[in-house]
Amino acid sequence: MAAEEAAVRAQAETVRRLKQDKADPDEIAKEVSKLLEMKAQLGADEGKHKFVLKTPKGTRDFGPREMAIRERAFKAIISCFKRHGAEVIDTPVFELKETLTGKYGEDSKLIYDLKDQGGELLSLRYDLTVPFARYLAMNKITNIKRYHIAKVYRRDNPAMTRGRYREFYQCDFDIAGQFDPMIPDAECLKIVHEILSDLQLGDFVIKMPWEEVRSEMVGEKGLSPEAADRIGEYVQLHGGLDLIERLLQDPKLSQNKLAKEGLGDMKLLFEYLTLFGITGKISFDLSLARGLDYYTGVIFEAVLLQQENEHVEEPVSVGSVAGGGRYDGLVGMFDPKGRKVPCVGVSIGIERIFSILEQRLEASEEKVRTTETQVLVASAQKKLLEERLKLISELWDAGIKAEMLYKKNPKLLNQLQYCEDTGIPLVAIVGEQELKDGVVKLRIVATREEVNVRRESLVEEIRIRTSQC
Amino acid sequence: MAAEEAAVRAQAETVRRLKQDKADPDEIAKEVSKLLEMKAQLGADEGKHKFVLKTPKGTRDFGPREMAIRERAFKAIISCFKRHGAEVIDTPVFELKETLTGKYGEDSKLIYDLKDQGGELLSLRYDLTVPFARYLAMNKITNIKRYHIAKVYRRDNPAMTRGRYREFYQCDFDIAGQFDPMIPDAECLKIVHEILSDLQLGDFVIKMPWEEVRSEMVGEKGLSPEAADRIGEYVQLHGGLDLIERLLQDPKLSQNKLAKEGLGDMKLLFEYLTLFGITGKISFDLSLARGLDYYTGVIFEAVLLQQENEHVEEPVSVGSVAGGGRYDGLVGMFDPKGRKVPCVGVSIGIERIFSILEQRLEASEEKVRTTETQVLVASAQKKLLEERLKLISELWDAGIKAEMLYKKNPKLLNQLQYCEDTGIPLVAIVGEQELKDGVVKLRIVATREEVNVRRESLVEEIRIRTSQC
Repeated sequence: MAAEEAAVRAQAETVRRLKQDKADPDEIAKEVSKLLEMKAQLGADEGKHKFVLKTPKGTRDFGPREMAIRERAFKAIISCFKRHGAEVIDTPVFELKETLTGKYGEDSKLIYDLKDQGGELLSLRYDLTVPFARYLAMNKITNIKRYHIAKVYRRDNPAMTRGRYREFYQCDFDIAGQFDPMIPDAECLKIVHEILSDLQLGDFVIKMPWEEVRSEMVGEKGLSPEAADRIGEYVQLHGGLDLIERLLQDPKLSQNKLAKEGLGDMKLLFEYLTLFGITGKISFDLSLARGLDYYTGVIFEAVLLQQENEHVEEPVSVGSVAGGGRYDGLVGMFDPKGRKVPCVGVSIGIERIFSILEQRLEASEEKVRTTETQVLVASAQKKLLEERLKLISELWDAGIKAEMLYKKNPKLLNQLQYCEDTGIPLVAIVGEQELKDGVVKLRIVATREEVNVRRESLVEEIRIRTSQC
Repeated sequence: MAAEEAAVRAQAETVRRLKQDKADPDEIAKEVSKLLEMKAQLGADEGKHKFVLKTPKGTRDFGPREMAIRERAFKAIISCFKRHGAEVIDTPVFELKETLTGKYGEDSKLIYDLKDQGGELLSLRYDLTVPFARYLAMNKITNIKRYHIAKVYRRDNPAMTRGRYREFYQCDFDIAGQFDPMIPDAECLKIVHEILSDLQLGDFVIKMPWEEVRSEMVGEKGLSPEAADRIGEYVQLHGGLDLIERLLQDPKLSQNKLAKEGLGDMKLLFEYLTLFGITGKISFDLSLARGLDYYTGVIFEAVLLQQENEHVEEPVSVGSVAGGGRYDGLVGMFDPKGRKVPCVGVSIGIERIFSILEQRLEASEEKVRTTETQVLVASAQKKLLEERLKLISELWDAGIKAEMLYKKNPKLLNQLQYCEDTGIPLVAIVGEQELKDGVVKLRIVATREEVNVRRESLVEEIRIRTSQC
């Protein structure tokens, strides 16, 4: 045992030195994780009562403050999805193992399997797209616009400071069905644009990897690789509608029916994006490629540009915050007769967005409320617990958000301090005189103003005074 | 292979007959599940392209209609939790295996383990209470009121028609901290009462199993088993404050200091419940006992009484829809120094509630909207796709929930039919004449009334006309 203990101490020293030297956060995280595992092993050996108090590697708890930030972001995303008429679905966190097999190529090794405890072999979902396709095929749905917000699981190397976790949320919006070309695709890009603007994450650009456009032209449209590469030559780091126009004017390309068709689709998409007023943020990019196996057509990725907020001391290295594309073949993989349902969708990478929002709030020192309590029911004198219970019960039944301290005889100062700490704007104070007079003293925490309010008007008065909340 | 196929056919026949005979739904479910597994096996043998299109045993998808019902119930529950000043937290779906070890007694065999793929040994959470205690100990939190709504996992025998699943939601509200006796306990019971009343689930009763009260008196308060049993003799099937009063007047009990104390606590609880006006629904019940290892004090369970709704053809057998109690020792099991944090909480069994709400909606034939779309952007003539895209983009940017059909030249009839099918109340129709005149024709779907609205007033007009949504 002494040897193991010495090893743990040495590892702890390694971590200490890395921190002192302000080493790469990911490297520190790796070494800390190793240390924790060594400690865990040691603890397990030492006896039953030494628990390892940690969440599994690559995961984290969300406390009330983080949840408040998270819910703000979800609210913006959900209202965008609803604004675009999406329904919502949910699927189980695990699927039959075979449902996920053959969908993710190389990345399949990152899938979490459940232990075989008898019965079916199961795996945790790796994304929300494959379960969606399974759902469509299973229910023979050929036409739906839905969103799905849920956690997915990847046994990847975590980089928590950059928002890369093993358990993380995805916020997916997809349109399934046979429609006229590029209309749903354009809407997906519009949605990304709306959400990133709404969350005020700073400047961003939506990039469409040229590699994929090329392979679509060659693979789907049957264009010769030489012609496609000829197109590629034109493409600089960025490009939009102007670029496509120039390509279409090239006689070598415009003589080729298939090249013309492929470019025609791109042109159509950019025309729709122009009508949506969002082409300024969208460009092709030669340097990008996405890995998933199931994409068949246009794919895209939204990237945040360098944070300009000077208050943030250490800007988070972010990168991709949304991605998506067309996957016309996936549903057919599940259908017994191979019937295809064309799909296009977008996934918002919410964890990276959280990282930014958290860091920004940290820097701004804005006080984040973690409850919505409108009023604290308090008393200035002793022996009024029963009266407080009666009043708070009345308020709850009237739909008012109310709290009280769980003490028989709390001090008024402690009650007021609680409001200061938690941001409760009002205090309803019951006292013997007030009870006789049929009133409640209402104190406005911010101004320290106090007014007597008739008991029967209290609910209405609280509503009016907190209506901005 | 022929033998396996014959076995599948025989099993299919068994299922058909059970359905025809209107057998016990659980028995049918069991046989269907067996059939599906046999088919799965057969499919797996037959070749790669035969996928088994199902969710894992004991789980289900939620489609848009089910989600609309589910979100209605969540809304009621969350607003109750917020009304009582709760913060919200979230924890990972899996925990270190050892975190769950020794917390659930016999039920531990129902825990889902993850496969050992290298690294830590993990298990899916079995409830939200143990992760909560782990969270408190890990973050040294001694005082919090929080709710947590998330899925938990149990490898139990599913009985889906009764709302018993292997993956299901729990909605937990807990109060942790050292407080004056019975105040937080009473609030937990008030919360159950509010939620069950709000959801209009019909009549219910909250039962406190006498067994546990007895064991608390014997175990925690040190009362002799004989004295406790003497109390038990008094207890009929139901009983409340009157019963406790009678017990306190028994000379043999009131001479015993510990019995008096235990009964005193119960009396205090019932006094608080009287102030909350909810004692009518609360009683002791000799016939109940709850299994979890970690409870230490008062525990309770809310049970729905026979459905009175005569429209429901087959009343769902429901039973317990909420439960909870005091667990003062659990956090200490995680703390290295065994420091205790007293806790009391309640868990709402939402799946059973869904079953009832779903069945009720089925019976009422109420049309459930699955989107919130306010307006469909339509056209009556051809070649107006660009104008529709421009208008819908304006509406989205103004925060209006708007949809359009993804067709270049949709028929007006199809567009109106879509509104009928999905419950969209308004149609904004663009036409050549309207474009010239700077107006949009707004059609009210319910009345078929049509009015011309100036383009710059359209957003406001849609807001006013849909403000009740």
